This record gives sequence, structure tokens and C-alpha cells, in this order.
Amino acid sequence: MTGELHEACGVVGVVAEEAARLAFFGLFALQHRGQESAGIATLDTGSIHLHKDVGLVSQVFRGENFSTLAGNIAIGHTRYSTTGKSSARNAQPFLIDTQFGPLALGHNGNIANASALRKQLLGRGLGLMTGSDSELLAMMLAGTPGKTWTERIAQAMKFWIGAYSLVLLTREGVFAVRDPWGYRPLAWGRIDSGGWAVASETSALRVMGCSDFEEIPPGTILHFNERDPVECTRVEIDAPHAACSFEYVYFSRPDSVWNGKNIHAVRRRLGELLAEEAPASADLVIPVPDSSIAAAIGYAQRSGIPFGEGLVKNRYIGRTFIEPTKALRRQGVALKFSPLKETLEGARIVLVDDSIVRGTTTAPIVALCRNAGAREVHLRIASPRILHPCYMGVDMGTEHDLIAVGREPEEIAKMVGADSLAYLSIEGLSRAIGIDGVCRACFDGNYHIPVDENFTKNCFEGFGKGTV
Amino acid sequence: MTGELHEACGVVGVVAEEAARLAFFGLFALQHRGQESAGIATLDTGSIHLHKDVGLVSQVFRGENFSTLAGNIAIGHTRYSTTGKSSARNAQPFLIDTQFGPLALGHNGNIANASALRKQLLGRGLGLMTGSDSELLAMMLAGTPGKTWTERIAQAMKFWIGAYSLVLLTREGVFAVRDPWGYRPLAWGRIDSGGWAVASETSALRVMGCSDFEEIPPGTILHFNERDPVECTRVEIDAPHAACSFEYVYFSRPDSVWNGKNIHAVRRRLGELLAEEAPASADLVIPVPDSSIAAAIGYAQRSGIPFGEGLVKNRYIGRTFIEPTKALRRQGVALKFSPLKETLEGARIVLVDDSIVRGTTTAPIVALCRNAGAREVHLRIASPRILHPCYMGVDMGTEHDLIAVGREPEEIAKMVGADSLAYLSIEGLSRAIGIDGVCRACFDGNYHIPVDENFTKNCFEGFGKGTV
Amino acid sequence: MTGELHEACGVVGVVAEEAARLAFFGLFALQHRGQESAGIATLDTGSIHLHKDVGLVSQVFRGENFSTLAGNIAIGHTRYSTTGKSSARNAQPFLIDTQFGPLALGHNGNIANASALRKQLLGRGLGLMTGSDSELLAMMLAGTPGKTWTERIAQAMKFWIGAYSLVLLTREGVFAVRDPWGYRPLAWGRIDSGGWAVASETSALRVMGCSDFEEIPPGTILHFNERDPVECTRVEIDAPHAACSFEYVYFSRPDSVWNGKNIHAVRRRLGELLAEEAPASADLVIPVPDSSIAAAIGYAQRSGIPFGEGLVKNRYIGRTFIEPTKALRRQGVALKFSPLKETLEGARIVLVDDSIVRGTTTAPIVALCRNAGAREVHLRIASPRILHPCYMGVDMGTEHDLIAVGREPEEIAKMVGADSLAYLSIEGLSRAIGIDGVCRACFDGNYHIPVDENFTKNCFEGFGKGTV
Amino acid sequence: MTGELHEACGVVGVVAEEAARLAFFGLFALQHRGQESAGIATLDTGSIHLHKDVGLVSQVFRGENFSTLAGNIAIGHTRYSTTGKSSARNAQPFLIDTQFGPLALGHNGNIANASALRKQLLGRGLGLMTGSDSELLAMMLAGTPGKTWTERIAQAMKFWIGAYSLVLLTREGVFAVRDPWGYRPLAWGRIDSGGWAVASETSALRVMGCSDFEEIPPGTILHFNERDPVECTRVEIDAPHAACSFEYVYFSRPDSVWNGKNIHAVRRRLGELLAEEAPASADLVIPVPDSSIAAAIGYAQRSGIPFGEGLVKNRYIGRTFIEPTKALRRQGVALKFSPLKETLEGARIVLVDDSIVRGTTTAPIVALCRNAGAREVHLRIASPRILHPCYMGVDMGTEHDLIAVGREPEEIAKMVGADSLAYLSIEGLSRAIGIDGVCRACFDGNYHIPVDENFTKNCFEGFGKGTV
Repeated sequence: MTGELHEACGVVGVVAEEAARLAFFGLFALQHRGQESAGIATLDTGSIHLHKDVGLVSQVFRGENFSTLAGNIAIGHTRYSTTGKSSARNAQPFLIDTQFGPLALGHNGNIANASALRKQLLGRGLGLMTGSDSELLAMMLAGTPGKTWTERIAQAMKFWIGAYSLVLLTREGVFAVRDPWGYRPLAWGRIDSGGWAVASETSALRVMGCSDFEEIPPGTILHFNERDPVECTRVEIDAPHAACSFEYVYFSRPDSVWNGKNIHAVRRRLGELLAEEAPASADLVIPVPDSSIAAAIGYAQRSGIPFGEGLVKNRYIGRTFIEPTKALRRQGVALKFSPLKETLEGARIVLVDDSIVRGTTTAPIVALCRNAGAREVHLRIASPRILHPCYMGVDMGTEHDLIAVGREPEEIAKMVGADSLAYLSIEGLSRAIGIDGVCRACFDGNYHIPVDENFTKNCFEGFGKGTV
Repeated sequence: MTGELHEACGVVGVVAEEAARLAFFGLFALQHRGQESAGIATLDTGSIHLHKDVGLVSQVFRGENFSTLAGNIAIGHTRYSTTGKSSARNAQPFLIDTQFGPLALGHNGNIANASALRKQLLGRGLGLMTGSDSELLAMMLAGTPGKTWTERIAQAMKFWIGAYSLVLLTREGVFAVRDPWGYRPLAWGRIDSGGWAVASETSALRVMGCSDFEEIPPGTILHFNERDPVECTRVEIDAPHAACSFEYVYFSRPDSVWNGKNIHAVRRRLGELLAEEAPASADLVIPVPDSSIAAAIGYAQRSGIPFGEGLVKNRYIGRTFIEPTKALRRQGVALKFSPLKETLEGARIVLVDDSIVRGTTTAPIVALCRNAGAREVHLRIASPRILHPCYMGVDMGTEHDLIAVGREPEEIAKMVGADSLAYLSIEGLSRAIGIDGVCRACFDGNYHIPVDENFTKNCFEGFGKGTV
Repeated sequence: MTGELHEACGVVGVVAEEAARLAFFGLFALQHRGQESAGIATLDTGSIHLHKDVGLVSQVFRGENFSTLAGNIAIGHTRYSTTGKSSARNAQPFLIDTQFGPLALGHNGNIANASALRKQLLGRGLGLMTGSDSELLAMMLAGTPGKTWTERIAQAMKFWIGAYSLVLLTREGVFAVRDPWGYRPLAWGRIDSGGWAVASETSALRVMGCSDFEEIPPGTILHFNERDPVECTRVEIDAPHAACSFEYVYFSRPDSVWNGKNIHAVRRRLGELLAEEAPASADLVIPVPDSSIAAAIGYAQRSGIPFGEGLVKNRYIGRTFIEPTKALRRQGVALKFSPLKETLEGARIVLVDDSIVRGTTTAPIVALCRNAGAREVHLRIASPRILHPCYMGVDMGTEHDLIAVGREPEEIAKMVGADSLAYLSIEGLSRAIGIDGVCRACFDGNYHIPVDENFTKNCFEGFGKGTV
Repeated sequence: MTGELHEACGVVGVVAEEAARLAFFGLFALQHRGQESAGIATLDTGSIHLHKDVGLVSQVFRGENFSTLAGNIAIGHTRYSTTGKSSARNAQPFLIDTQFGPLALGHNGNIANASALRKQLLGRGLGLMTGSDSELLAMMLAGTPGKTWTERIAQAMKFWIGAYSLVLLTREGVFAVRDPWGYRPLAWGRIDSGGWAVASETSALRVMGCSDFEEIPPGTILHFNERDPVECTRVEIDAPHAACSFEYVYFSRPDSVWNGKNIHAVRRRLGELLAEEAPASADLVIPVPDSSIAAAIGYAQRSGIPFGEGLVKNRYIGRTFIEPTKALRRQGVALKFSPLKETLEGARIVLVDDSIVRGTTTAPIVALCRNAGAREVHLRIASPRILHPCYMGVDMGTEHDLIAVGREPEEIAKMVGADSLAYLSIEGLSRAIGIDGVCRACFDGNYHIPVDENFTKNCFEGFGKGTV
């Protein structure tokens, strides 16, 4: 998947000494989940301090910021990069004052019924400053009755349909909340040197000093602070387990563990099964770096074809808004990848990519390999064909944008200039992930929740009079 | 009044070509009303664009900002300078999305029942991002029923107690609103080259290209846009006229006109009457620059004592957060004022100041004059003794802070080192201003509205069910 | 002189505790001499620290800067505002490493033979990073032989023709240097709480904590540090005394003293003599604020016509790069000055201005007064006609730009719309200043130094072989 | 080589339409050679425009910068990252005015006799603004006689001892200069769409649109502009060829070609020979990412042991100045690398690193692998032991800092916790690189140039009288 596929954010929460600093390093380890903006909020004697801005985590936070981010309780957020101008306004955590005291909130996911909820909130006379889900969730919480934040969160969750892994900061401490479907990861653990941490991925927990960790189960509110024992509240909402399979295919760090499965191991296994399902006669297995390396290793090990490095990725690419010159425009992906002639020249290669969404960069990459002398290019995709858009936060565009819709692999192979093209089967994907309750909607169209513009109608019924 | 007396903000509104640019120059002319932050919002095909930041008007706006501030309808705001860190968060206009479309709002004044309103809003389940009155007013408007913005504003005004001169921007155009008491100025006019403008002071209207202007009467909503005729709606709220006398004494620009009275002329008249009430035998009349120059001229002309320049003010003082050195700390006001030895040496002077609030800078100024050789210093204050705090936005502190509370002029004269000290009488103030319906609460304690922590109780009764 | 007349910079030097902070406040008091950039250099155990940037003194320096500006010895500089983009590159002090150790230099003035010196330096194989005189002076010093900095400075001064008041910082301490003609002011004094200070104007010395001060005589090098007694070295260069009369007319702060004369007193005296030379039958004397107030007071006192305030100046004007709208362009000076109708209406006024250079703003100001109702406008200029350009740093343009060249006062009066116009005579100017050795070149064409493109030819003769 | 080994900079030069934009993309491709600062200078009708600042290439350049960087001729520079504060002052290109017109210069390398040259320049009366080699080189060129820039450069090269790949911009066009030893790479080519480019590495040339390229031979001045044919001047200086072997081991991009050898292929070959020289009995070959991947692939292919991914590198690490918390400090490298338990658990691994300099990060990485369950860790280094410091720009510290000095591999293996440790032999290195004339000074102590503090004495003899 060499295109620009945007998911939605990483979150962390900490109760420990130097909480903001720990949150910083946690966000740093989640930088791959969002490069647009970053923010940290801390609780300090009843008040919440906040610093957030547009930029990478390492750009947003400087030493001086930590002097204002006092306190032993913190949450943090890093936001994904959308097209066009980044907006400081949409940076998270989102902080408001409520009748129950200050509330900061960071969100990873996508609320499927957001626009219906938004209309209802506005209709009740509320003003909204941003178009973000996180303001929506925070505003709803401000208006939800309940004796404790746990009660209020549990009550509000009944109206939230979609993917959400949340961290919240209030005077009661940190809350970590995972949607009943379990779309996005969220794990927590004890910091070896004392305290508690929560983060989108386990690799971030390790960086924050946790040797062990466990997942927050779907439909659960975890609450921790400096005084009380960790409290885990299960919210009874009927929902099938639907862990996003794309976290395994592409989003998560290879060193993270989710649903008991290490991401790297799953990806290697995807490659192994791909080798079984779609063998090729070739001299070398070449990954499209970086996300396809594990699958390529798996393919190589299973097929016995040596693993090789055939494409170099420009590591510092970051975000640049500079338009290429007219002369460069034709070169396309050349800025991102360079072919290694010495490896590719004269070789028959298996080119392994993790996925193809729009397919816009596939043809140029195949061409790069051919121009560098590859004799044959057998494209192998370590996930099934993407045939349906995602409503849970993965920006795949509409069906119209998906290259595999209405096209057989042979046709696509021709389009992108490959000698052959094969995808992993849906069964292969399932076997590689190896757990039940996976959302494969983008592959098989089974969305687990009713995806209908009107399905949220009346969801506010009984939400309480005049509360929002 | 040589101390730091903060009032609250300047506002502008424009319907004309290059509206943002005109708003910029209007704000520029209102810079004296607020140096902390500045902002402009424009309406562009149904959307509202906003740029605001901490800093002087000339710092916040650069050429490139105007390309994003498209549209022929704009409002602007400049905010006063408080102590401590400036916060971008509190910059105005405040912009929200509502069920009636986007709403931007800029506010000059102080809502006396703000904390009660805030509690009620929060209690209804709303979250608030800032501690500012303007968010409060905007949020209330978002939840107020009504067919048009004029209706909604008129309805909400029933719950707003205090000083407010507002500009609002919606898809219907610009609204300018003045509280029923008429505490703060707000005027409007036709731009000679076409279009309409509204501004806190008439001097800003002139800079924006209006040859003629008139005031927006207290308790009035003015509405204008590109299509419709200007619409003026009077809201029936029983309220005595209470124009802030400190606008005449200190806040407004001398070239502005308010309630039909030119500020400079009023100040000169304050000086004339002061000369009648409190003559002095002296060689020169010396103003404390800049705000007391007009009064000193009046004193000089009436008394026949020549006007002289005895103190130089550092014009570029701006805001500096650099702490003086230990050695400089003792010098006090020396950074702000320099004495002119050649003028002061051997002279008996009448030192005219517009007012004394806390009195902290008066003694150092008198000392400056004496050290420069002034033989006698007769302090004359062109307004009465300040004995009561202000609840309408003028930051005078509490009674405890006011030097005149519990002290006779003779005692104050001794404290500040003057040979004599006299204030203008309340009658003198009234005669100089020359209109009825002036708020002199800081002088005479008559607040025109019930100043009571609880007076706003139940003010939300009947505000509509579940609307906010 | 209501146009934009740019002079060149202010300088300070300090030996005292918290030297950088003292330098900051000194620069602050010299802000009127230059608003483009500011910088401070300090000596700290043999190294020189430097912070400089584009902006006002209060913008360039924040609290954190002072932690890096350690040491008890400092110099500072504030630079005048030229048209177009400000350049950080030209900010001063200029710092280089030399064979004699580090050298920082700040310069006020204009080296008349700069382009010849530049050509010679380049011709000797040197590279120059900027187009500024200060780099030139520093580079020449780096290549001048001598045992001490005093010796080297004295030697280099022989080749410098023009106006220069310099501060230098080396491992030997602070050096303050004034050109042999004494074109620009430079004074020094003992800081009451200990230490020494030097500054362009005495008002800055007072702000830096000096009760007494004296001037640095023309052609003198003053040297002070923490150890040694202050050392004053006279450089024997034959040069007539030529104190810039425009410092009296316009540049200096009214509370400064130069050549034993207080600037305010001189300006009042200019007004008195103007009243004697050019009386007018009028009701009010109105100054063009701020620089003409003293002259107007003098005119009023001598003529017996009351002093009045008829024009208000926008104090916050600062620098804005925003172009006015088409509608505003016609209004011209309206942004800078507002007329006070109440004062001007029906009045016959004497409008006092300090000078007229290009005359571009004079007509609009007269028009402002007339439009506000002034019945008669008698323009009185408190300095003689400007007929010759300045080569010593005052940006008066060429003869072609000067309104008085080739025009009699009557003609100019007509051009600017005044009922009458009179200038002070050259004799009046001389009497008011009251000292010998004044440069009046812009009035009388007597330049004191040979103003000739080629006059610097061979000035490098004997400068030492291969030294630069 | 997992430590922080800093080399010195990347350079580009372009003659083509939209030259600045092309230079930008060239620098972008050289970002790995320097992350501290970036700059581009263009020639525009005789003047040189310059923009440079601290930061990554993508941070320093925004769209608006290119409007000021007009012209069809450009050079660019990206600077390496040192510890501590980045300084805008040291950013390149360095631009000066000279007697021969403006000169901009960008430098990659290290002048070994810089301090002697500096002393001589200062001694001749010159002032220097920075401590950089590039100012030194530029200043020397400004003072070197010669009819053309080529002549002057050729003359100055006689005094420059050390590594330098330069780009220069003058009114005559772009000059690319390579030192006679050929320490650092520099190549050029024809841009397919027209024009010429030069760059530190061939991968950058490809990004700039060159299909073919060739190296600039050691001791050569290449000159190109819009008019004339490319001119190649060989400077006769007796110097052995000494291509830095560390460019092959670590610095250069794998997709670059140098001395006819592709970097990736050399690295793979280093791994192959390492497998031959130092076999190990193991289950997996694991690289320390990213620079050791090619060597690990080579080792795997030759040994038949499968290649695996066992360590994940945080790609976004960038530069952060945030100190880790006390709790995190103990975790050491955890922020940079994460172990993949699933790969490592129970495995006997060959851990391949490109080099060990100080060795500070080696022990933590071995520990990471062990803690993740690796049963045996056989460390294999794809280059020889580093026993001598580098004087040509590679920041290896002194002998004291080098872990291999005075220690046998067995001892080092114990120190870092590896079961075994083997280095590639010097012969292996030579065979892998496969060319003559390689500098292996850090391995074998043969420096090719006299490394002696005094060796530059008198090098200025005959440099011309009074020229510098």
C-alpha cells in the first residue's frame, strides 16, 4: 500500500511522575499514526493545562512546554495528516469546561453517525467551534446526566456508533474508552517504575516503560488516577467484535501486539500464505518499503526465493508543500523511491506490496523496477482486493476510487504493467490474523453496523430533556 | 490617570468592497482600546473566514492574510491588554457553527451577570471553551429561538445585564448591538465610496471613509448587508441611560464624538471648570501626557496661566515583559516619563492629570517634577474622586485599591508629595459632559443596575425548554 | 516635518551588573531613532554573545534572551526604518573575529566616503557580507595595525570621513567613538548604582540610571571596562565642529541635552523666534504633533495667541505594510492625523510644523484643518527652507525632491493651500540653538567636508601593506 | 553503526528552468547527509538571491521562498546535525561580495589545515564572521588573483588540504570543485529536459531529472552556465586517490553510485564476505536497521541463513531535544529500536551492524534482542575495527572514544553482551569496494595526507602580496 492512506490518530494516557514527558515519548512512538498535529493535556490541582499545535510531536513540544504541563496525570494525542492546510483549530486534545468540571478528550476513530449527532446537538441550541468528532463527543458528555464520569461516558456510548478509542482527562483522573465493536486498538499497562499508562499501541506502552500490558476490551471504560485502584467498567451494548484488519495489514507498528497477535508476525504470515496461494517463478522477492518488508520476508522464507532490497525509500520525505517543477512532474514517485539497479538488473522479481487501494502509485513503481532492468515483475499483494469504502475512519475514498472495483486482477496487472498480479484470499487474510471478530468490510462488504445515512435517526430519543 | 486602566476592546463592522482591509484600518484607529489581540472575520458565499492572533493590529495582519479574508462583509475586534500572558484563545471575534448557520461575534463591554449565565449554560449541559463573555453571548444566541437573527438577539438581550457593544456576523449580514443602558459607544455611517460601517468610535468611522455618522441608540439592533436597506430594531428593555463618564475622561480618542459631544472639547471643558473650581497661583500648566493635554489646555486658557510641556512620554513603550534591573527598579516611572528641566526649573506648576485611580504612579511623577526643579506642584485632577469600583468593564480593582477611599484630598496631597491637590466636582463633571444619562458610579456609587451577586437568579426562566 | 524622515540609529554601551538588561532599557529610550531592528552584544569571559533581529526593541528581546547575554559589559544598537523589507542581515551590532580577538560594532551616522572605502577593501581581496557601513568599519579595524584597540581606532579614523557615533565591544571593554566633526550626539555618564554607560542621547543615560552625564567630545575615543579608569583619547584630525542642526529641529528626544542645550528648550525658542519673525493674526496656535508641540508652545507664549490641540496623532501607527483600500487611498494622511472640529471650527489658526522636506504631507494636513472648519491657516515652519540634500545620514533625497528648491514661500503656500507661509530664518535657527559649530548644510549648503565623489581617492595611501 | 556519526553536508548545483525548485528536490534527496540547516542561492541578472535557515529541507523552504529565488542558475546546501543548538549563522551557502562580484559557496568536507589558514587570514587583517570552513574558502577566493573564477579556484586549491566537494555560484555560473584526493563524492549530469545538474550523490541527480551522470574527477573544476559549453579543468596537484570508505559503509544512499560502484551492491558484498570470513551457526540474520539491511541480506544470501526483521526503527525520530524522564533514562535505546519478540524468541541470531565506532549503543541493542528471547546473539560487523580518528570530516572523536582501540573482539563481545563478535577484515573491505585509492585511515591509520598540527605552516608562502 504505497499510496497515502490516512487513518485517524494515536492516543495516550498516563498517571505517573513527569506525566507530560512520558506522554510525549508515548506520542513519539505513535507518530506513524498521525503527523499533522500533536497535543498533551495535564491535570494539576484541579485545573487542566493544555499545549497543542500543528506539526510533528518533536516539533510541537520543546523543553519549555513541560514546565507549564505540570501534574502527574496526562493525556496526549497525535493527529493524522489530511490534504491541504493543517489547522491548529482541529488539534487535539479538545478541552472544555462543563458543569462537572474541565474535560479534555482525545479521539482515534470515526463516529459513523457524527453528522446526525451534530445536527441534533445544533438543534438543541448548542454552538460548535470545529467540525471534529472529538468536540462532538466532548459536548455530548458535557450534557449527559450521571453521577460520575464513568456513568456519563457509559450513558453517552449508547448513542455513539462507530470506531472510537478515547482518552479523557477530568478531575477524577484518566479514562480510556473503547467502542463496543473494538474497531481500533487501545491497551494499558503498569509502568515498571510506578504508575499506569494507556496507549493506542503496545509498542508505545513499552516506550513508556511498561514491560507488560493488556488490551482494553471492546465496550469498556478504564479509569485510573493516583489514589484509587484501576476501575474497569463494561458497558452493555450489543455489538459484534470487529477489529479493523487494516491495522494488521498496514497501520500498526510491526512491534505492536493486538488481540494477542504481533503485527509483524501476522504480516510475515500474510506473506507466507501469499506464497502458498500465489507462487511465482522468480529470482528475488522485493518489498515495497517499508510496510511490506515483513510480508516479503514471509514470502521469501516460504517460497525459498531469496529476499532482496530493490527499492530505497527516502526516509526524510516528511511533508513538503513544494510543487515539483514541470520537468519533475513526469517523474512521479521518483522522489519517494529509488530502484537499486544492481539488485534488479536482469532479475525476475516478486514485488510484494501490502495492499492496493487507489492504485495510483503502483504503475510508477512497477515501471521503476522495469527501467532498472527487472526482467519480470510479478506483483503479489499481501491482502485481498479492496472493493468497498470504509466508514470507520480509513480514508479509502468511494467505490469509484478503488482500482479493484469492476476489474479482475489480470486487467489490473495490465494497467500497472506487471507480468502477473495476485492478491491474498480473504481466507488467507483470516488465517494469517488468526482471530475471530475481524472487520473485513473493505474486502467483503460486511460492515458490522448498519451503514445508512438515516440509521441514526431518533438515536437521541430519551437522551434526557434539555440536557444537551 | 497615568496608571494602567484597562477597558474592554474596540469593534468594527463593514459592508463594502475590500471589507477586511477596511476593517483593518478601522481596528487600527481603535488600537488605543486594546493592544492584546486582534481579529477579523469575513462572510464569503455563506462561509465565515477568520484570522485572529495575539499582538497589535499591525502585527496580527500581514498582506497575505487578506487573500483568505475574502468577501464584502466583515467584522473586527481588538482586545485590551491584561496582565500576564496573552492568550490566543481569548482573541476575538469568536466563531461558532449553530443550527442557524455560522456566527461570529466581537464584544466590547462587560456582562455583569456573566457568572450566573455561565452557570446556567453549563447546567444545561453545554461545554465552554473559554472564560470570555463573548463565547457566552454567542452560545446563548445559538440556543435562543427566533426566526431571524434580529429576533434571536432581541430575545437574548433580555437576559444580558451589563455593558455590551457588539458586532455579529452571520449569513444575514452584520449586526451591531448596543446595550439598553448605552454604557459603551457604538456608531455607524455610510462610507462615502459606498457601503456601510460600524465602529466603537466615530474617529474609526472617519478613517474607514465615512464623512457623516450617527450613534446606534441604546437598546438597538442595527442590521445591514449588501442587499437590504439598513434595518434598525429597538428592543424594549426598561433601562436608564448610563453612558460611561470614563469614556469622556480617559478612554475615547479626543477626535471621537459620543452622545453628540466631542471628547476633546469635553476634556478641555473639564479643564476650564477645574480652573474655575480650583484655581492655583502658578507659572505654568503642565499636563501628564497624553490623555491630560486637553484638560491642561482648558485649565491654561481659563486661568490665563501659560500652557507648557514639562513631561515627555516615551511613545514606543508598547508592552515589554522584560523586568528592569535591580538598579532600575528604584527609578519607577522613569521609563515612561522624562521631565523637561528647562521648563520645570524654578517654576510653580499646575500639574493636570485626568484622574487618579490607585495613585501608584502619581507620587513618582510629582517627584520627577520636583527633582527637575519645580518649586511648587499643584496637582489638579480633571475628574472627581473615584470612590467605588466599576462593574461594567473598567478594571479599577476593589474599594481597597482606590486611593481616594477614606482619604481627604489634603491627605492624598501629602502622600503624593504635592503642595496642593484638588479634584473636579461631580457637578463640574456633569456640566462638562453636558448630557443626561451618564454613569458616574465610580464617583457617586449610583450603578443604574442592581449590582448584586444574586440579581441574575432565575433570569433564564422561560428562556425556552432545552434550548441551550 | 510630518513626512517620514529617517536618520540613522541609536547606540548604547554599558559596564555594570546586568549589562544586557541595562542596554535594553537604554535602547528602549532610543527607539525613536530606529524601529527596524535591534541588537545587544555582551562580553563574557573573553567571548562575545550576540542577539539581534528585525523589530522593535520590545519585540526583539524576550526574557529568555538575557540568559544568553551574560556578562557585565554590553553594547546595543537600534536601527532606523528604511522602505521595503527589513533585513535581519543588516541588524547591528556587527560581530567579527579578528587577529586581535572578537569585535562587535554599532554605528550611528553615515560614512561619506563609504563607497570608495568599500572598493578599496574589496580590491585588497576581502569579501563583504553586507552593504552596511558598520561591516566596513569593523573590517577596516580588523586590518589596522596597532598595539591596542584605541591605537587601531585612532589610526582608522584618519580614513573615515563623515558622521559616526560608534560603540565597540572587544576583550578590552567598551569603546565609544565620535567623529571629529561631532555630527551626531554621544554622551556618557556614571551609573548611580555603579558602572558606566554611553548612549546616543542623554535621555537614554538617565533611563539607564545616570544622574549626571557629559558629552564625548568630537574626535574622541572613550574606553571603559570593569578594571581600568575611564580613558579618554583625543584623535588629532583637523575638522570644523558640525553638530547636525536637525537633531535639534526633529530627531532628538525633547528631554535630551546636546552641546549643553536641552532639545525642548531649543524647540520652544525656535517657536518664539518664529513668532517674532513671522507674526500672524489668529485665534489659536496649533502644532502638527508630536515633534512640533514645543515650537508651537513657544510661538503661543511669545505671540500671546492661545495654544490649542487641533490635530490628533494615532499613537499606535507603528509600521504596517497593509495597502489601503482604493477608497482609503484618497484619504491620504487621515490614518495618521485626525482634526478636532470643535477646536478648529471657525478659527483662524497658526499651524506650526518643525520643517518641510518633500512637502507631500503638508497639503493634506492643511486640507484636514480647513475641512474641519478652520477659517484661515497660517503655516509657520520652525526651521529654514531646506535647499540642499544631506550627505551625513539624513534621508532628504536629492534637490529634486525638496519642495523649497526653486520656489518662494508664497508659491509653496499656494501649493499646500495655506493662507500664508513663513519659515524661520537661518539666523533665527542659529540663535535658537545658540552654539557655534552647527551643520546647517541642508539650509545653507555649507557641508564642512568636501562633498565630492572623488574626494576619498587615495585616502588609503599608507594604510599599511597587505593589512586589509 | 547505530550511533550518531556525523558527516558533513550535501551540495547541489543546477542550470535549468526553475533552478531553485530543482535544487530543492536535489537537497531533499540529500537530506540524509545533513538535517541541521538548508539553503539555496540563485543567480538572477547579476545578483545572487539567498534563502537559508535552520531545519529540514522541507521546513526551510515554503512555496513563497521560490518567488524570491528567481533565475535559472542555483546552488544548494544541506548541513549536518551537530549536538546542541543549531545556528542559523552557520547555514550555507555562504554569500559574500568580492572585487570580482558576488560569490556564494556550499561545502561538503573538512579542510584539515583550516586553523592554520584561519590564522593566516586573520593575521592579514581580515575579519571573519563564523567559524566555518566555507567562509574561510570564500574569503580566500575573494583575495586570490586570477582572471577568471576558474583560475582563482585553481590557485586557491593549492593551499587547501583536506576533503572538499564544493559548489560555487558567481556571475560566470556554477562551479563544482572536488579535492585532489577525491575524499567525498560529487557527480554531474545532463537533465533530460534540458540543463545541467551537479550533486553530492547520483541518487540526487536522478531525482533532479538526470538519466545519466558521471563523476567529477578528483582535483577538477567543473564550470557550467546557460551560454557556454561545460568546461572541465584539471588542477595539477599531486595527491593520491583517497575515496572515503565510510561513504560505502554508512553515509551514502544505497541507490547512489560512486567510483562506478553502487553503494547497495557494495554493502551486500560486505555482508557476503563477512559471511565467508566469519560464519556463524544461527537461525536468522537480523540487521540493525536501516543502514545494515544490505549487508544483512548479503550475509543471509551467502550463508543460507534466512533473513529476518528483528528490530523496528522509529522512523519519525527526527531530532528531539526533550530529555527523557528519570524512568525512561534507564531504557536507553528503546526509543529508537523495538525488538520483534515473535522473530527473536528462542532464535539464535546473527546480528549484522555496519560498523562500531564508540560502541555506546551496541550493548543496549544486544540486550534488546536477548530480552526479546534471542537465545544466542552473534554480532557481525560489516567493516573492520575502527582504530584511528578521522581528520576529513567524520566525527569519530579521538582514539580515546573508539571502543576497538586496545581491545580484542572477544573483550568487546563480552562488553556488549554478545556470544561472539567478528569484524570484516581490511582485505574484505577492500575487495567489497573493489576499487583502488580508498581512504581506510580510520581502519589502518594511513591518512594519505600529512596529519600534523604544523603541516600547514608556510602554506601561504607566495600566496601573493596583500591579496588576502
